[in-house]
Amino acid sequence: MTGAVVAVDIGGTTVKASVVDDRGVRRHQRSSPTGSGDRTVAVVRSLIEALCGAAIDDGLDVLAAGVVTPGLVDAETGTVAYASNLGWRDLDLRAALAGPLGLPVSVGHDVRAAGRAERHLGVARGADDFVLLQLGTGIAAALVTGGALVTGAGSAAGEAGHMPVHPDGEQCPCGKRGCLEAYAAGAAVARRYGAGGGAGVTTARGVVELLGRDPLADRVWNEATRALAFGLSTLTMLLDPALIVLGGGLAQAGDALRVPVERTLADLLVWRDAPPVRLSELGPAAGQWGAAIEAFALTPSAACVQAWARPVVPAGRGG
Amino acid sequence: MTGAVVAVDIGGTTVKASVVDDRGVRRHQRSSPTGSGDRTVAVVRSLIEALCGAAIDDGLDVLAAGVVTPGLVDAETGTVAYASNLGWRDLDLRAALAGPLGLPVSVGHDVRAAGRAERHLGVARGADDFVLLQLGTGIAAALVTGGALVTGAGSAAGEAGHMPVHPDGEQCPCGKRGCLEAYAAGAAVARRYGAGGGAGVTTARGVVELLGRDPLADRVWNEATRALAFGLSTLTMLLDPALIVLGGGLAQAGDALRVPVERTLADLLVWRDAPPVRLSELGPAAGQWGAAIEAFALTPSAACVQAWARPVVPAGRGG
Repeated sequence: MTGAVVAVDIGGTTVKASVVDDRGVRRHQRSSPTGSGDRTVAVVRSLIEALCGAAIDDGLDVLAAGVVTPGLVDAETGTVAYASNLGWRDLDLRAALAGPLGLPVSVGHDVRAAGRAERHLGVARGADDFVLLQLGTGIAAALVTGGALVTGAGSAAGEAGHMPVHPDGEQCPCGKRGCLEAYAAGAAVARRYGAGGGAGVTTARGVVELLGRDPLADRVWNEATRALAFGLSTLTMLLDPALIVLGGGLAQAGDALRVPVERTLADLLVWRDAPPVRLSELGPAAGQWGAAIEAFALTPSAACVQAWARPVVPAGRGG
Repeated sequence: MTGAVVAVDIGGTTVKASVVDDRGVRRHQRSSPTGSGDRTVAVVRSLIEALCGAAIDDGLDVLAAGVVTPGLVDAETGTVAYASNLGWRDLDLRAALAGPLGLPVSVGHDVRAAGRAERHLGVARGADDFVLLQLGTGIAAALVTGGALVTGAGSAAGEAGHMPVHPDGEQCPCGKRGCLEAYAAGAAVARRYGAGGGAGVTTARGVVELLGRDPLADRVWNEATRALAFGLSTLTMLLDPALIVLGGGLAQAGDALRVPVERTLADLLVWRDAPPVRLSELGPAAGQWGAAIEAFALTPSAACVQAWARPVVPAGRGG
């Protein structure tokens, strides 16, 4: 009987879940609106139950579940100290799931899990020192140094979105000024286009579609990629990564994002070479792949992950 | 017979060396102008030879030598890929010393070694996640995360002095603009006081002595501590340290430095607590203590270092 895990990525608006078998094939996928508070826990539990059912019908042996979430996550205890968008505080997420499900459950941080996945089977395969900058509604980073993910003293490492890039710059929703996220997150790109007088566009993707035809879109995008390069120059000076990976929704812009970021980063680093800047291969599914890797680590099949270096079914854009 | 090592810290202007015995007592100290190129290697060699002689006269058994240096240092191979101030490029420093001396020699990075020493026997005792910001002529950081020193892909991690803190800010000697070092390094504080019209002061210490009496000194110092807090807010968001340690020559300013940096850091971090900011306990001797720890690691007496948690002879200000 083929072993499998259920992998769950709790996003700000949607919870995405899938069954991943021990050959690294995604066999079933489900998603559901995230909600908040206890409701989110119930959503996660019922997605896992539904996928367990689908897996069993498919002849799979579900060995564990892996759940990744934003917030202050302690992977060892399986608890979430704080997750603002989900309304969680001091939640023992592992206990809330493992008991009712009767399965081992891993609890991880969404962006760090995405970094783990990029290192195992994405564009950072085998890299011991790299940065994954996850560009979504907000911005966060997975920092890998010497082969280890940086967690920090209070599980709060990687808040790259709130690096200041302009002293006394734009107001960030976090309360500070000049945060990277206030210029370069997906939400900021759309907001700044509107604030500059642009109409009819409510997403970063919409701004990207206007590049080369709309000077306001060009300016807003240029300021976003410049802020990113600025933040990445700091990350490069501090951590000396061999590689920078751009992931998350904004990375769907492809080379319209990657090329100006890489070029500006090289300009900003006068006295050392810039590391190469690459786009995520796993796309929005990186968090789920990370959750699957963390779940398999709880099982006797943990070693199967080593063979996934090329996923049999590409994660694709659908995520 | 008591075991000992010779510990050497190669500074920009002075090479400082001492004998450290296996109880953590500094028994002899020597220093010499650094020079550059082959001359520096000869200076280091003859300091070690002189201190070996003094140690033997003292009844000590010299087991190894530890040398720490600025630059791109590969501690595993004992080589220095590049050290601009010393004029070194692709230098096999270990071979240049170990052969002639007939001793095992460790080669390390000066600031990372200082971080190691602060963690073993300084103010960061036992901390698994902390940042040491070493403030001298320039600025560099030792970054400890999850109990490990961050080295980076090319041994170039920790260049905190060249984090940009003001886009399009002051020209830095490195060729970039707005680097932290252009505002807050010792050399920058003295230079900016002169550039602002101040006369008769050529050192940061001189500027500190004028605080509260000279508005220009107050302004330059305020801009320096604000730039430091700005850089530290980035380090805090990225690495989530439990502690920040200020070391190097500028830290001799004591609370005139620590208090405004800590206060401004707390102001800048709106939505998370700031880690405590402390002054180095080891002062300018931190690098030498780190060199001693790294040298003992080459010997059968390596475990002796665990017992040093309080150095028997305080390193003091003399360094």
